[in-house]
Amino acid sequence: MLPFARVAIIGMGLIGSSLARAIRAAMPTVQLVVSDADEDVRERVIQLGLADDVTDGAGAAVVDADLVILCVPVGAMAAVAAEIGPELSPDTVVSDVGSVKESVAKVLGAALPGVHVIPAHPVAGTEKSGPDAGFASLFQGRWCIITPPPRADAMMVEKLAEFWRRLGARVELMDAAHHDRVLAVTSHLPHLIAYSIVGTASDLEAVTKAEVIKYSAGGFRDFTRIAASDPVMWRDVFLNNREAVLELLGRFTEDLVALQRAIRWGEGDTLEALFTRTRAIRRSIIDEGQDTEKADFGR
Amino acid sequence: MLPFARVAIIGMGLIGSSLARAIRAAMPTVQLVVSDADEDVRERVIQLGLADDVTDGAGAAVVDADLVILCVPVGAMAAVAAEIGPELSPDTVVSDVGSVKESVAKVLGAALPGVHVIPAHPVAGTEKSGPDAGFASLFQGRWCIITPPPRADAMMVEKLAEFWRRLGARVELMDAAHHDRVLAVTSHLPHLIAYSIVGTASDLEAVTKAEVIKYSAGGFRDFTRIAASDPVMWRDVFLNNREAVLELLGRFTEDLVALQRAIRWGEGDTLEALFTRTRAIRRSIIDEGQDTEKADFGR
Ligand SMILES: NC(=O)c1ccc[n+]([C@@H]2O[C@H](COP(=O)([O-])OP(=O)(O)OC[C@H]3O[C@@H](n4cnc5c(N)ncnc54)[C@H](OP(=O)(O)O)[C@@H]3O)[C@@H](O)[C@H]2O)c1
Ligand SMILES: NC(=O)c1ccc[n+]([C@@H]2O[C@H](COP(=O)([O-])OP(=O)(O)OC[C@H]3O[C@@H](n4cnc5c(N)ncnc54)[C@H](OP(=O)(O)O)[C@@H]3O)[C@@H](O)[C@H]2O)c1
Repeated sequence: MLPFARVAIIGMGLIGSSLARAIRAAMPTVQLVVSDADEDVRERVIQLGLADDVTDGAGAAVVDADLVILCVPVGAMAAVAAEIGPELSPDTVVSDVGSVKESVAKVLGAALPGVHVIPAHPVAGTEKSGPDAGFASLFQGRWCIITPPPRADAMMVEKLAEFWRRLGARVELMDAAHHDRVLAVTSHLPHLIAYSIVGTASDLEAVTKAEVIKYSAGGFRDFTRIAASDPVMWRDVFLNNREAVLELLGRFTEDLVALQRAIRWGEGDTLEALFTRTRAIRRSIIDEGQDTEKADFGR
Repeated sequence: MLPFARVAIIGMGLIGSSLARAIRAAMPTVQLVVSDADEDVRERVIQLGLADDVTDGAGAAVVDADLVILCVPVGAMAAVAAEIGPELSPDTVVSDVGSVKESVAKVLGAALPGVHVIPAHPVAGTEKSGPDAGFASLFQGRWCIITPPPRADAMMVEKLAEFWRRLGARVELMDAAHHDRVLAVTSHLPHLIAYSIVGTASDLEAVTKAEVIKYSAGGFRDFTRIAASDPVMWRDVFLNNREAVLELLGRFTEDLVALQRAIRWGEGDTLEALFTRTRAIRRSIIDEGQDTEKADFGR
């Protein structure tokens, strides 16, 4: 049996449109209604045949849905919740894909008292945006973290888990606050650092921007890929996971200063020891199936 | 006409073995003699048929060579130079592939007074090591920066440039000190930061190492790729390009602190403005042919 028969997706960007494609592929009989505020996007969604129905207002999309998934930036969740609230039935499950979970849980819980709010986060994506960037296999083999609020209905949580499993994801339940600390390490801090170093590199006097671009194959270009991610999405992530990011940033800066000191004083052994230790982590990530062995080209 | 008829490569790791393969493919009539201190590596080189002759001592390999290319870590250049010095003919060009140029130029210039020392650096590589990691197309479309010392023989410099062009590289001449500043930005700092963040992430208490590995697709795993690079090679890079790296690290830390402040005070506009600016750099790198448009999977 299908976990959900009628699904509404709000926001047809990279994640929303990937979700629509994945649902179509894995559960073709699901009734799929989607909405997007941008007329061009709606038109593109119709051209691509991504849904059974496309609405402009989010409210119209959720009528009679058993599952609603909000695929908008974390900072836009409150406005969308206010819009759909009056149209929801009491049995509806409202979930989302936001990269931060504690603040989203709070916002959705407050705005939608009578329904099943079960936030989630598929740890899968790319640096691209919009409906053309999506693809059906995005969630295949990736983790989807569900963060059920304290008194969530266990059966609804299991239905949502089953839904994500059908899309190819591996599911894990986690406390929202812990999710935010884990993702601060594995995603938010790396993005912040990448944005920062790309910013630094483009502001130098001794080395021109043209030179930075020309010789970027030395390692820098790997950072620019991450630093090309959607600005609004990431602004919202940092504003909504402030504490965890700031705490971690403190730790990172401390470690970097120690490394700086080792370079200044020519402590080769310290450097080599750290550089050897980090190799093992890479190995584990490949063993866990979260990346490929294939070498990256150009250093 | 071949720029060089008899070439010696010292050190058959990733770069040395890629060089041997590329020479074989582009200039099959070149006489190629290589040496490596490790017996297993020499055996592997023979199995793979990468050279006409394989010697254990570096000195034996350079006899009668018109071009010698040192493909060892930057910190090992002095010892190798001492070993080959007595065997070189006065017309020989001695070059290298080291990632730092000013210190190598100094070391080779001092150790090899009677020959043409013309240091170079192909800005191409991967995070792997050893003779099995090499491949013939590594230098295709990549830049090779040649840093001729002040009174270098112009004809020899041009021959070396022609040699790299035949291997598919694009050649640029640059002052050694400037090279070191440019590469500090495009390669050395990114590697240092990647090593540092991977180190920080593996030392936390609130988040386990298993969790970091499991959810690494959020961005972190891109850093682990760089941080899996050879420890000895990178130790030597930081010890030999100390000033440029430390100066840049100061700039980076300053910028990161400003970003930290923007997060703490909720300055969304500042964050969004930086995140938007960094996107343009990515675009330019793709336009310059230094990376592909292909999105990276898993965020
Ligand atoms: N990208 C990733 O790697 C990734 C991974 C996991 C989770 N996520 C999460 O997925 C969510 C969507 O990200 P995405 O990558 O799909 O972004 P995207 O491609 O930029 O799409 C964003 C979508 O949100 C809509 N939107 C933006 N602001 C809105 C507002 N104020 N009100 C209503 N709708 C608004 C956009 O509508 P328009 O068409 O009108 O612009 C668009 O449909 C975010 O919460 C993000 O944290 C992203
Ligand atoms: N990897 C990159 O991405 C990249 C890119 C551009 C330039 N480079 C430069 O290329 C050079 C070689 O790097 P690689 O990536 O090819 O490293 P690699 O795969 O680890 O190979 C290193 C080679 O150097 C030899 N070696 C190490 N220490 C030595 C010593 N004390 N005396 C004599 N030989 C020694 C090794 O010999 P054994 O077989 O005996 O271990 C091996 O042949 C370095 O200067 C590096 O800065 C690297």
